[in-house]
Amino acid sequence: MTVDENTLPVRDMVTTGWGDPGRRTGLPAAARSWLGRRIGLPDEKDPDVLPPAQPAVPLPVPAVPDLAWTALAEAVGADNLDESREARLRHAGGKSYLDLVRYRSGAISVPDVVVTPGSHQEVLAVLAACSKFRLAVVPFGGGTSVVGGVAPIGDGYRAVVSLDLRRMDGLSQMDTESLTVWAEPGLRGPEAERLLGEHGLTLGHHPQSWEHATLGGYAATRSAGQASSGYGRFDDMVLAVRVATPAGTLQVGRGPASAAGPDLRGLLVGSEGTLGVITGMRLRVRRKPQVIADEGWSFKTFAEGTTALRRLAQAGLAPDIARLSDPDETRANLALAPGAKTRLLRGLLAVRGRAGGCLLVTGWEGTEGSVEDRRRAAGAVLRANGGLRLGPAVGEAWRRGRYHGPYLRDDLLDAGALVETLETATSWSDLTGLHEAVRGTLRYSLSVGTTQPLVLAHVSHVYPTGASLYFTVLAARDDDRAEEQWLVAKRMATDVIVQSGATLTHHHAIGTDHRDWMVDEVGPLGVEVVRAVKGVLDPQGVLNPGKLLPDA
Amino acid sequence: MTVDENTLPVRDMVTTGWGDPGRRTGLPAAARSWLGRRIGLPDEKDPDVLPPAQPAVPLPVPAVPDLAWTALAEAVGADNLDESREARLRHAGGKSYLDLVRYRSGAISVPDVVVTPGSHQEVLAVLAACSKFRLAVVPFGGGTSVVGGVAPIGDGYRAVVSLDLRRMDGLSQMDTESLTVWAEPGLRGPEAERLLGEHGLTLGHHPQSWEHATLGGYAATRSAGQASSGYGRFDDMVLAVRVATPAGTLQVGRGPASAAGPDLRGLLVGSEGTLGVITGMRLRVRRKPQVIADEGWSFKTFAEGTTALRRLAQAGLAPDIARLSDPDETRANLALAPGAKTRLLRGLLAVRGRAGGCLLVTGWEGTEGSVEDRRRAAGAVLRANGGLRLGPAVGEAWRRGRYHGPYLRDDLLDAGALVETLETATSWSDLTGLHEAVRGTLRYSLSVGTTQPLVLAHVSHVYPTGASLYFTVLAARDDDRAEEQWLVAKRMATDVIVQSGATLTHHHAIGTDHRDWMVDEVGPLGVEVVRAVKGVLDPQGVLNPGKLLPDA
Repeated sequence: MTVDENTLPVRDMVTTGWGDPGRRTGLPAAARSWLGRRIGLPDEKDPDVLPPAQPAVPLPVPAVPDLAWTALAEAVGADNLDESREARLRHAGGKSYLDLVRYRSGAISVPDVVVTPGSHQEVLAVLAACSKFRLAVVPFGGGTSVVGGVAPIGDGYRAVVSLDLRRMDGLSQMDTESLTVWAEPGLRGPEAERLLGEHGLTLGHHPQSWEHATLGGYAATRSAGQASSGYGRFDDMVLAVRVATPAGTLQVGRGPASAAGPDLRGLLVGSEGTLGVITGMRLRVRRKPQVIADEGWSFKTFAEGTTALRRLAQAGLAPDIARLSDPDETRANLALAPGAKTRLLRGLLAVRGRAGGCLLVTGWEGTEGSVEDRRRAAGAVLRANGGLRLGPAVGEAWRRGRYHGPYLRDDLLDAGALVETLETATSWSDLTGLHEAVRGTLRYSLSVGTTQPLVLAHVSHVYPTGASLYFTVLAARDDDRAEEQWLVAKRMATDVIVQSGATLTHHHAIGTDHRDWMVDEVGPLGVEVVRAVKGVLDPQGVLNPGKLLPDA
Repeated sequence: MTVDENTLPVRDMVTTGWGDPGRRTGLPAAARSWLGRRIGLPDEKDPDVLPPAQPAVPLPVPAVPDLAWTALAEAVGADNLDESREARLRHAGGKSYLDLVRYRSGAISVPDVVVTPGSHQEVLAVLAACSKFRLAVVPFGGGTSVVGGVAPIGDGYRAVVSLDLRRMDGLSQMDTESLTVWAEPGLRGPEAERLLGEHGLTLGHHPQSWEHATLGGYAATRSAGQASSGYGRFDDMVLAVRVATPAGTLQVGRGPASAAGPDLRGLLVGSEGTLGVITGMRLRVRRKPQVIADEGWSFKTFAEGTTALRRLAQAGLAPDIARLSDPDETRANLALAPGAKTRLLRGLLAVRGRAGGCLLVTGWEGTEGSVEDRRRAAGAVLRANGGLRLGPAVGEAWRRGRYHGPYLRDDLLDAGALVETLETATSWSDLTGLHEAVRGTLRYSLSVGTTQPLVLAHVSHVYPTGASLYFTVLAARDDDRAEEQWLVAKRMATDVIVQSGATLTHHHAIGTDHRDWMVDEVGPLGVEVVRAVKGVLDPQGVLNPGKLLPDA
């Protein structure tokens, strides 16, 4: 399951699932049987029958007008326009549960053409052509959005262009003294790490989508990685950003810090392709860690574990990686990972009276001395707050499987499950209350008779003032109303989140799925502000329609 | 010189200088004589004759139309409108060298009325009245701007309202679990620390202006404090911000971190009163440090010192306070602080072959254990990079005098000096080159015959990718062209800064003095973006005219 950095993951994912289907491991019989009992999966589904790699649906005829086609060909060269069935299907969506359900059922919209520019100037030319001919432009990086961020929405446009940035994947201006580098948006995580690694450097940004997501996507969506408690969120790493817009080029960000007026960099980072196309970024990089040390801890309760994490974060001792699972997630992780080691761990936890407790994975990265010092100091805090050290095996097992979640999801989908996630972040004082409220709401809304869903949660990003909460939902899928089944639950849970004062999303971004709540997040005037900025940068409104903001 | 937190500094500063003139210490004879030789101060100036506390100039008749006056009185109560000579003079400017020169010469503009609202709703009402009657509104906190941020510019307006936020100085919603608090904008540093201190908390934000500056001002200008290497810049502390605007209320910032679209909080922080009036903020606070440990170090060269600081910052070992003076600033600090201890230190440095070297002050704050661990680890890096430890006295002397600089400036002004500062931040790889270039430019532009100015510099805020550079200039003032003398030098130095790619200002903000370079900083499209946001929030354009953006 680990990635050899010299063998990059496949560039193009299977459309109906994640990555390279050959890397799926299948759901072990014991896990399937446990799940079947818990959430009532249908027996008749055969997990060994994979869905087709592509939906077998007819596509509409591409609608790009001839003159627009000529302009696009002049912008990027005719070789870099692709209206093949395969290209259009591959750019029809991201990788949310809804995307996969739609892909599998064939209920998808596709772009009319996929355009692959090779430079900032070419992106400018494409945007000029799209503004002139009123073509919607959907920037496309790794296609890993789980919130509908790359949906080819074209109502009111003559056609939809998917702007695939894969050819813009350079890394330059490496400043090994200041530890900064200029990166192009189409670069994927593994390739970026390979190029930086040659200089002993790393970004340290590892979201679960790392094998496929791009650096431009990280910036456009304000991504957080698994080690963001230590390395910082991706928005913290963006020192400068350049966007191509229909109104021209905008580049902002000077010096390591500035008081030169409002932070316009923060306005472009997180703009999800609606204000401009990110064509380059100056990024902070770090020296590669000499030592990586993962370990597992156990807490009797979720509250005890969150208190321990809060004390670490407020003392400046947060581990680089910190993932605290609630009791249900802990139980599910142990049930879904059968094997001798798991049995041993379950035995140990039972003996210590922690069978119903919470697992915490901590990861430390750095020089030998700093890792040792920080681990020792943090270990004392964890123990003082009820933590039981389980040793490195639990942490190392987590690291080995850190990118495997989306493959497991495909197995679960095949087995008939509804499987989706949602996330937020809130203050420490609201954390356990919100955890209970969202959990209760999801359980209520996805119960069928006496069968309840599994609602699993963890804290995976800690800050001095609060933390993220990440929920995973597993239920028996109702294939007759698969979309609605999830949307009802999602809507109720999201209402609870925004009404509590927590943020709408900690790292999944807005896309199409969250835009109706943007007024709750930033108020009507906040929405108007973003619209005004868009009016300057994208006067024809061609950039990523239907994302980020509610319709006016 | 230190502040007893139970005796707050005077609320209203003398207009022609800083703070409470009673706290000035005067320039020691030895220091004056050294300076006289170095920069050619006129002998005839008598430093014992203080300038008048207020300029004795006639003021124009207040121009607020009657109907507007009625509307303002309805908004805040007639008791909270003040058109007295004293109030108008006190709100005529900030505390830059140019402000003080103008105050002393009487060449000042004053607002027509000072309005002191007591709540967010009252600010909204004032802004509505000002928009209706076309009155310019200048938000006023502590009045400590050094870039013309509170200049009462009223061209094209019927009158100028200075909006003094002193009555809005509450602290509420203290969340001791999440370590956050809701603060009003008019609260000053000492009072905030006193209120937080009752709960064992601190902001840890200590700019040199701390005794008089307000929290709203910190946020509006993206302030950095002397301990910002450890506690973070003020923009890092603002979790949520509420502004009153002529278009209504805008409040943004949810959770400890978010991916919910662009960071609109960063758009309001740093907006310098041009997009709205900050009426409340949720701030991150910390537990008060148990231990404060300052110390001094010596480096043979500035390059050696900056390399040591870079290595600390990149290893995550930066002290909470780090100030590295270049050789000229080191020499001047020793010359201007006569006394037995200074003579001892000079002797020590001469014996160790470091007479022409650089002093570094480091400060550590936290728990006993963490301060000890961090100091030990950092000390090893400093020594390995040529640092000589001088012990705590140097650091402690710096801390005692940390707010005294502006008083010393008044003494220097009285002695006939031009004395002003400018600052920037750049990458580590450009730092020493830019230091030399700006230094050379200032020396060139302020030389008269064979008499050169003193150009002193230090690094006082370190980041993993770069650092700030802070310049202090001392020259003989040409009273016939005092403004022009400085403006020529400032213009040349600022051109060098922006052309190098460094930021226009690291923590002084834009105000009136830097706005002509905003196009260099963010490009013409960046300026248009801010204008578009202003168009939504302040459609009549009444908020702080003449600041932040160049004229359209």
